[in-house]
Amino acid sequence: MPTDVTAFAPATVANVGIGFDILGHTVDAVGDRVRLRRIEEPTVRIRSITGIPGDISLNPHSNTAGRALQAMRGALELSHGFEIDIEKGIPLASGMGGSAASAVAAVVAANALLPNPVHRLRLLMFAMQGEIVASGSAHLDNIAPCLYGGLVLTVGIDQPRVKQIPVPPQVRCVLVRPHMHLGTREARAILKSDVTRSDFVWQTANLAGFISGCYSNDLDMIRDSFNDVIIEPQRQSLIPGFKMVQSGAMTAGALGCSISGAGPAIFAWTVQQHAEAVRAAMVDAFTSHGLQSDSWISSLAAAGARVVPA
Amino acid sequence: MPTDVTAFAPATVANVGIGFDILGHTVDAVGDRVRLRRIEEPTVRIRSITGIPGDISLNPHSNTAGRALQAMRGALELSHGFEIDIEKGIPLASGMGGSAASAVAAVVAANALLPNPVHRLRLLMFAMQGEIVASGSAHLDNIAPCLYGGLVLTVGIDQPRVKQIPVPPQVRCVLVRPHMHLGTREARAILKSDVTRSDFVWQTANLAGFISGCYSNDLDMIRDSFNDVIIEPQRQSLIPGFKMVQSGAMTAGALGCSISGAGPAIFAWTVQQHAEAVRAAMVDAFTSHGLQSDSWISSLAAAGARVVPA
Repeated sequence: MPTDVTAFAPATVANVGIGFDILGHTVDAVGDRVRLRRIEEPTVRIRSITGIPGDISLNPHSNTAGRALQAMRGALELSHGFEIDIEKGIPLASGMGGSAASAVAAVVAANALLPNPVHRLRLLMFAMQGEIVASGSAHLDNIAPCLYGGLVLTVGIDQPRVKQIPVPPQVRCVLVRPHMHLGTREARAILKSDVTRSDFVWQTANLAGFISGCYSNDLDMIRDSFNDVIIEPQRQSLIPGFKMVQSGAMTAGALGCSISGAGPAIFAWTVQQHAEAVRAAMVDAFTSHGLQSDSWISSLAAAGARVVPA
Repeated sequence: MPTDVTAFAPATVANVGIGFDILGHTVDAVGDRVRLRRIEEPTVRIRSITGIPGDISLNPHSNTAGRALQAMRGALELSHGFEIDIEKGIPLASGMGGSAASAVAAVVAANALLPNPVHRLRLLMFAMQGEIVASGSAHLDNIAPCLYGGLVLTVGIDQPRVKQIPVPPQVRCVLVRPHMHLGTREARAILKSDVTRSDFVWQTANLAGFISGCYSNDLDMIRDSFNDVIIEPQRQSLIPGFKMVQSGAMTAGALGCSISGAGPAIFAWTVQQHAEAVRAAMVDAFTSHGLQSDSWISSLAAAGARVVPA
C-alpha cells in the first residue's frame, strides 16, 4: 500500500440553471489538489494550505477536507490517521464548488490509501459531512458531480440516487469568475420560500426538456429549455453586470448562460467553435462593470476526482 | 383523394404523476374513432355521436372535434366542409383524455382528406382549439401524446416544443377507471396556487430521475422517482379508495401509481409480467370501496392517432 497519495478534484457548476439543488457538472480545467499522508496517530491534521489564498481553517473540524476525513475515519473505524496538504485551485465563495472539491479530493486520496477501498457512494456521504462545514447544510449538487464527473443528477440526501447524464460531445462550458465574493448563505437567504404553480410548471418543463435534449443530442431542445425562471431572477441582482454578461454570451452563440451555484461565477454552455467568443463576451461584460475576472473553458466529458501524480 | 376517412385516437394519461401539465402518454388499448366525410358546404356538422354515452354537444362549436375542425378550416382557408360521426370509446370526465382524443382523431382524419396534408405540429394547434371547449383553457398534455404516441413531453403553448421520450420496452401501463365522474375544472380548482421550495426541489428531482430512467432503461431509477409530492396529495381525496388502490398496485409490483390526468382514473406502470396482478389489485381496491371499474393494459410504444379502416 502507498502511504502518500495526491488526488485532484475539479471545480463544479451546481444547479446548471434549471436544476436547482439537483444538477451539477464538472469544470475539469480547474480544481483543488489534496495530498494525504498516512500517519499512525489516530487523528486528522492539516499541515498546509497553499494555492489561492482564502480564509480556510487549519483546524480539521472546521475544514471541509478535514471534516470529511474525520467522518470517513469514524465510519470505517480506521486505526490510523491522515496528514493533509491542500493546494487550492478554486477560489472560495466563488460559486465553483471549492469547498466540495477539497472534501472530495481528500476522500478519494484516502480511499487509495486503504487496503480495502470503499464504494463511491460511501465516499459521497463522507465528503458531504465536509460540505456541511462550508454551507451549513447537507447538499450534494457540487459533491456528486465532483466525485463522479460530467453532468450529474442527485436525488435525495440520506439515500441519494446519483445519475450521470450524457452531454452532447460538442458542448463546452465557459466559466467566468469575477473578482468579488459572495457567500452561499447570503445567496440562499434571499430566496423566497414559495414558488408559484405557474413558475413551477415552466421550470419543470424546461428541466425535462433540458435532460431530454442531453440524452438525445438535441441542441435546439437544450437551448430552448435553458431558462431558469425561478432562482436566477431572484439572485441576479447580487452579481453586478449579470444581465449584460448573459446577453453577451447568448449573442456570441451560447446555448444558455446562468449563475454557477450561488454565484458570483457565471457559466455558459456552447458548442466548441463558439467557446472563445462566448468567453470574450462574458469577460468583456464584467470588465465594463469594473470587474476583472478569471475564465476557463472545459469539456463536459465525465472526469471526476482522481488520484494524480504528486 | 378519399372523401371519407376514419381515424382512431388513443386514450392518454396526462401528468404521469411527476410531470404535471407537461407529460402524457398514450393508452392504445382504448380510444375514440371519428369518421369524416368531405362535404361541399363550407361548414362543419356533427351527424352522430355513438359509443359510450355522455353529455356531448352535437353543436360543432361546443364539441371538441367540431371546434378543432372549425379551427383547421379557418386556418387553412378550406372551401369545403366536414360531416362528423364520433364513436366514443373513452368515457367523459374520466381523466383519460377523451375530449382530446375526439379532437385529435378529427384533425388526423381531416388531414387525410386534404390534397396537401399539413405537418403534425399544425394539427396539434388545431386540436388544441378543440380542447379549449372541454377544459376552458389551452393545454397540450393530452393532445400531444394522443397525436404523437408513446410518452411525450410538451413545453409551452404558443410555440410548443414536443419531445417523444423512449420508455423501456418491458413497461406496461395499467389504467383503471372507477365508475364515477370528476370534472377537470373541479380537480383543478382545488390546487393551491403556490408550491413550497422544498416540494419544488423534490418534485424536480423526481421528474429528472424519471426522465433519466426512461432514457437509460433504468427501472430502479424510474421506481425511485415515481413520486408526485405536489399534485397527488392535493387531489387524492377526490377519489374514494385512492390510497388503497395505489398501495395495492405497489404491493403487486408496480413501478409507480398515481392519478391519470385530473382523475378519477388511476394508472400504474409495471413490467409486463406483473401487469395482470397489478390490475387485479387496483380493481379489487375500488370494489372494496363500492366502485365498479373498467381497466386496460397497454404497452407504451409510440402509437399515436392514425387513420384506420372504417
